[in-house]
Amino acid sequence: MKLFRYGKLNEEKTGILIDNIHYDTSDFGEDYDNNFLATGGIERLEEFIAKNKTNLKPIAADSRIGTPIANPNKIVCVGLNYSDHAAETGLTQEQEPILFLKAISALNGPFDDIIIPKNSFHTDWETELALVIGKKGTHVSVAESTDYIAGYVMMNDVTERHFMKHRGGTWDKGKGCNTFAPVGPYFVTKDEIEDDGNLRIWLKLNGELMQEGNTKDFITPVKELITYISDFFGLFPGDIISTGSPSGTGIGHVPQRFLVEGDEIEYGIDGLGIAKNKIVNYQKD
Amino acid sequence: MKLFRYGKLNEEKTGILIDNIHYDTSDFGEDYDNNFLATGGIERLEEFIAKNKTNLKPIAADSRIGTPIANPNKIVCVGLNYSDHAAETGLTQEQEPILFLKAISALNGPFDDIIIPKNSFHTDWETELALVIGKKGTHVSVAESTDYIAGYVMMNDVTERHFMKHRGGTWDKGKGCNTFAPVGPYFVTKDEIEDDGNLRIWLKLNGELMQEGNTKDFITPVKELITYISDFFGLFPGDIISTGSPSGTGIGHVPQRFLVEGDEIEYGIDGLGIAKNKIVNYQKD
Repeated sequence: MKLFRYGKLNEEKTGILIDNIHYDTSDFGEDYDNNFLATGGIERLEEFIAKNKTNLKPIAADSRIGTPIANPNKIVCVGLNYSDHAAETGLTQEQEPILFLKAISALNGPFDDIIIPKNSFHTDWETELALVIGKKGTHVSVAESTDYIAGYVMMNDVTERHFMKHRGGTWDKGKGCNTFAPVGPYFVTKDEIEDDGNLRIWLKLNGELMQEGNTKDFITPVKELITYISDFFGLFPGDIISTGSPSGTGIGHVPQRFLVEGDEIEYGIDGLGIAKNKIVNYQKD
Repeated sequence: MKLFRYGKLNEEKTGILIDNIHYDTSDFGEDYDNNFLATGGIERLEEFIAKNKTNLKPIAADSRIGTPIANPNKIVCVGLNYSDHAAETGLTQEQEPILFLKAISALNGPFDDIIIPKNSFHTDWETELALVIGKKGTHVSVAESTDYIAGYVMMNDVTERHFMKHRGGTWDKGKGCNTFAPVGPYFVTKDEIEDDGNLRIWLKLNGELMQEGNTKDFITPVKELITYISDFFGLFPGDIISTGSPSGTGIGHVPQRFLVEGDEIEYGIDGLGIAKNKIVNYQKD
């Protein structure tokens, strides 16, 4: 299934994509949140759809699409998980996967504006395959790790390179600004993705192809990542794990190219849909 | 007011401490969460207490105390905000405050066990004054920054030093393990703390005084921290900002002293109450 949420920010309703039509599923009566994932909600929704398929109503064509998962607990990101991207950032690859947290308050709809923060020099894009966790666990074995995946979403791990590298301390400063985590458009259940280690990832800036990678080039593949992360952070239903960006980001472009007001990024991953964000400058609320 | 939450994990009820007695406030009908803080809940609760003070019932003496704030959005932590602690960790102080995120899934009750993670070498304590944000904002001015504080909590920024320093990448790996963020016992509203720049902070390990500091030794005081953090992360009601630990942590002790099963830490901050955690080893669920 391809699930989505639509409507005004913080008032989103639920929906499902069937045969490329966006249907409302409000009558299902549950949001797509941690509790939904923790308590077999995907199976309940399947039953609901089977019973009500002919009665579903399409949503209005101009509806805003929100994040497909409501109120995730945390976003764990993997750094430098493609060697070509590691090289282009000029950062040192570690012997173990690099992990960092992205602020939940950075969550953004897949077609919402991305705001360049005040004092930003180098706001950049990073298109990433992200996992949605369906089950609680720590110290998960590699053999069992895929049991913890409920499905997949696309995330853009938008990054202010100057904040990340030159303002002291951890990477988190350059990763967690408001609007820096567009997620979606769809939460795609696990059964729909045959091989998460062979998905094309791409991004266009104002129509020009900038990123073109494939998850087959992961340094640490999904199974091993889940195990590794669960040795540090407890996994909980609704957690998002973003698996790192392939090359083609602005910092790796020759000459370097960062986002400016009026730019538009459009990006996609096989099977997960396409997202598009306009770039705007920060305006005081 | 001194607010608390009590009862089973994830089923906590609300309460208030008056004249050193723990009263239930379930009839108030709201949890102490982001929405409560965002919508004038503190004022509503004050009115409720004024009207119902004589009818409040004390809670059972053996009740578990949970985290005083439900479902915070994020925990932003400040690193090395006391120069004596910076020196004892052997870490390089930066020219700007160090910030990192602590996983929400690390939240823990103020009297719950702290679990030493599997493969841990150096699990350590850090007693900290933490702010609870009451109002949404970015790029907050120093003059207005205290308007964003709803109140204060005590947090122990429990840290696995080896994960933080020697496992590659950011500090987040050593900060976000399950149970590594005991918060409470009380959420103390802003009006009760006269000067957040002059509060004694202490911790005893098995009865022996290990930490004894005062927030007057902050490198960056609270007002400036709020401004600084709001330049990177959006502030949202319910966010917790933990302001850093004074010296006296295990890594600074001579000889170094880290937590082992059976240890007990007890710690307090003027006006915020006392917490106590027993240390246990990780057991597979």
